[in-house]
Amino acid sequence: MKIIRTIAEMNQLSKQENASLGLVPTMGYLHEGHLSLVREARGANTAVVVSIFVNPIQFSPDEDFDAYPRDLNRDLKILAEERTDIVFVPSAEEMFPREYASWVEVTSLINRLEEAFRPGHFRGVTTVVAKLFNIIRPAKAYFGQKDIQQASIIKKMVADLNMNIEIMIIPTVREDDGLAMSSRNSYLSPAERRAATVLFKALTLARKMKQGGEQDANNLRQQMSSLIQKEPLAHIDYVSIADADTLEELFLLDKNALAILAVRIGKTRLIDNMLLE
Amino acid sequence: MKIIRTIAEMNQLSKQENASLGLVPTMGYLHEGHLSLVREARGANTAVVVSIFVNPIQFSPDEDFDAYPRDLNRDLKILAEERTDIVFVPSAEEMFPREYASWVEVTSLINRLEEAFRPGHFRGVTTVVAKLFNIIRPAKAYFGQKDIQQASIIKKMVADLNMNIEIMIIPTVREDDGLAMSSRNSYLSPAERRAATVLFKALTLARKMKQGGEQDANNLRQQMSSLIQKEPLAHIDYVSIADADTLEELFLLDKNALAILAVRIGKTRLIDNMLLE
Repeated sequence: MKIIRTIAEMNQLSKQENASLGLVPTMGYLHEGHLSLVREARGANTAVVVSIFVNPIQFSPDEDFDAYPRDLNRDLKILAEERTDIVFVPSAEEMFPREYASWVEVTSLINRLEEAFRPGHFRGVTTVVAKLFNIIRPAKAYFGQKDIQQASIIKKMVADLNMNIEIMIIPTVREDDGLAMSSRNSYLSPAERRAATVLFKALTLARKMKQGGEQDANNLRQQMSSLIQKEPLAHIDYVSIADADTLEELFLLDKNALAILAVRIGKTRLIDNMLLE
Repeated sequence: MKIIRTIAEMNQLSKQENASLGLVPTMGYLHEGHLSLVREARGANTAVVVSIFVNPIQFSPDEDFDAYPRDLNRDLKILAEERTDIVFVPSAEEMFPREYASWVEVTSLINRLEEAFRPGHFRGVTTVVAKLFNIIRPAKAYFGQKDIQQASIIKKMVADLNMNIEIMIIPTVREDDGLAMSSRNSYLSPAERRAATVLFKALTLARKMKQGGEQDANNLRQQMSSLIQKEPLAHIDYVSIADADTLEELFLLDKNALAILAVRIGKTRLIDNMLLE
């Protein structure tokens, strides 16, 4: 497993590779969700690159950039076990030097959900992903369904800007009790960890209501919200029933619908979503 | 000479080409300035791609997008004579479909000069150039010194976003009386054409003052402005003496200095610049 720490070296390597590279961009502190992306990539590409970079420009000043969990040695050990070919670990100083001033931005899909609570977040995401794509030149790149708005925005960026990369969205990996895997789960106290199952419960409720014939998206939102509000440690940022393609809010469940939510459990903000089939 | 009209076909071709492609992005209505870029590209690459695309998103609604001169047959004839390998002529509908929503933006180098008079112009330029770079994947891309702010911004975009492309800035080609070649010169009436030489005269005056030992940038700006104001058909948008690297306004001529100006001759807006050596 090659560990590469400079842009120049990564760039050089990706130019040499005639092989198709599969890229898994991460912020490290890897969990089974990330590893499912790595395994998907390994099956479909001649070599797998995992990038580990806690991207400062996607955090606002009041967010958890400094506190974000990091354990590079553990990550490298796990990736070696997964037979990862290349790990790209650039420095923040090289990725975003002091005079940095270029941005990639998608102006659809963003005026709601995560962006309403994290203004500027997706501009930071699309910019760093565009940079990683240019440095690594993957044939395919892998993103988790848990961050569905992020994945949709990146797909839109790739299509609009004619980036020659296939975006693969991989199903969310869950704990036994349904909690979506997330590096931020490590913030949860035992009591918060138990409370956090309310996200999955609310999503499952929405799916059952849809399967039971419910047509009114507002009833789903109300029932999900009521369920979450019964959990004293939980505070809702949003509960959305949205078109799976456009992420626009739905009134009637007549299209492919996603239930999407963001809930704070104590100080930890968790997101999750589920296709309503 | 291959003429390619779809993104998919251009993309396919650039993937096949193991050769290094030299790209000359143009809005057509070619003149000797463009051809000097083509000739530079031909000498330094195994194949030359010229793109012809009047980019709607770099014009504001009150600008000359509809009036911008176009003559594709003439352009193709000229490019064939120059032994161009590939001409890429995409449609506006394919480049910017109705649901288009992604932007590439450089936030330094823009808060003055052209951007002050053409807000949003450079966002349109960087976005279309990023698209062309992704579609064509050139090793080198060629831009004219006349549009020095554009060239500087594109260089910054390429560096910041880790685009693996060398940006070549090629000296301005001038008419015998010094007027910089520009597609917009075709708008000028005979009287305006004579008046338009005032841009080159003002730049030359600045250079002579510098060579004569003048240290105060403000004196250069004042003398240039006075000269231009004597021409009744000319109206100054700006006269700048700027740092050649940052394009920041200079007070003292102690660095590599550029004289840069934008002058309206009747309804035609012309720009030009000169390094003060």
